[in-house]
Amino acid sequence: MNNMYEEFGRWISILYRQFQIYINNELKDLGITSAEYIYLIKLYENKELTQENLAEIYYIDKAAITRSIKSLEDKGYIMRIKNERDKRSYRIQVTEKALKTKHRIYDALKSWDDLISLDVSDEELKMVSHIIRTMSLKALNRD
Amino acid sequence: MNNMYEEFGRWISILYRQFQIYINNELKDLGITSAEYIYLIKLYENKELTQENLAEIYYIDKAAITRSIKSLEDKGYIMRIKNERDKRSYRIQVTEKALKTKHRIYDALKSWDDLISLDVSDEELKMVSHIIRTMSLKALNRD
Repeated sequence: MNNMYEEFGRWISILYRQFQIYINNELKDLGITSAEYIYLIKLYENKELTQENLAEIYYIDKAAITRSIKSLEDKGYIMRIKNERDKRSYRIQVTEKALKTKHRIYDALKSWDDLISLDVSDEELKMVSHIIRTMSLKALNRD
Repeated sequence: MNNMYEEFGRWISILYRQFQIYINNELKDLGITSAEYIYLIKLYENKELTQENLAEIYYIDKAAITRSIKSLEDKGYIMRIKNERDKRSYRIQVTEKALKTKHRIYDALKSWDDLISLDVSDEELKMVSHIIRTMSLKALNRD
């Protein structure tokens, strides 16, 4: 096997897992998990989104999104608003409670970004991000 | 929040998750999961390893490794050999059954590598790998 790819995959996995551990720990007292905070981020940026919008942003399957959205709703962080025209469809918005925790989530993310980027320039970050995106798009279009 | 990091994190997560889906699917008939195949890879490369060795390679906590190793043992892919001097310590080796599935695992990984690297040069891969490693090491040394 090509050792270059094995190393690459290993470091991607390590970075991913370490971040999951970090963010779960940082948001534990808020009751928000690593699987859930990502939706809040997008709902802070956009007044209102549908589940379909979130699926398109993160490429996460419908069942998993439904689970996370339900959990966030149960904990009072989001509200689902029924669509008048299509009763099976919902619009999702953050609640006051979620707005109050916004700075906590952003601070945690900022601390992480500062930490991992200590020896990485903006130029390098941009380039890495572009290449990872190229790889991801290939992965997503594999059918 | 810095949008550059949000994009970066989003693409890392997408690539990570897509690979998990891919490899779980590819190895499903072997009964090997994405959490487990990584240990087989290292055991193919090294005649014998301890759980501590595997923890150092992947930075995965002991409980999770124990679970995966136990599962691989139950399925007949590895054997644990008691250490004569220290009865709590085990040496781990692959079985004949695991050796027979080696090509399946390597083929699946090779197909994935070929797919995601279609528009990425070796030079770029090396650089990205180096930067992700730099970030991961910062993450691992965080407290």
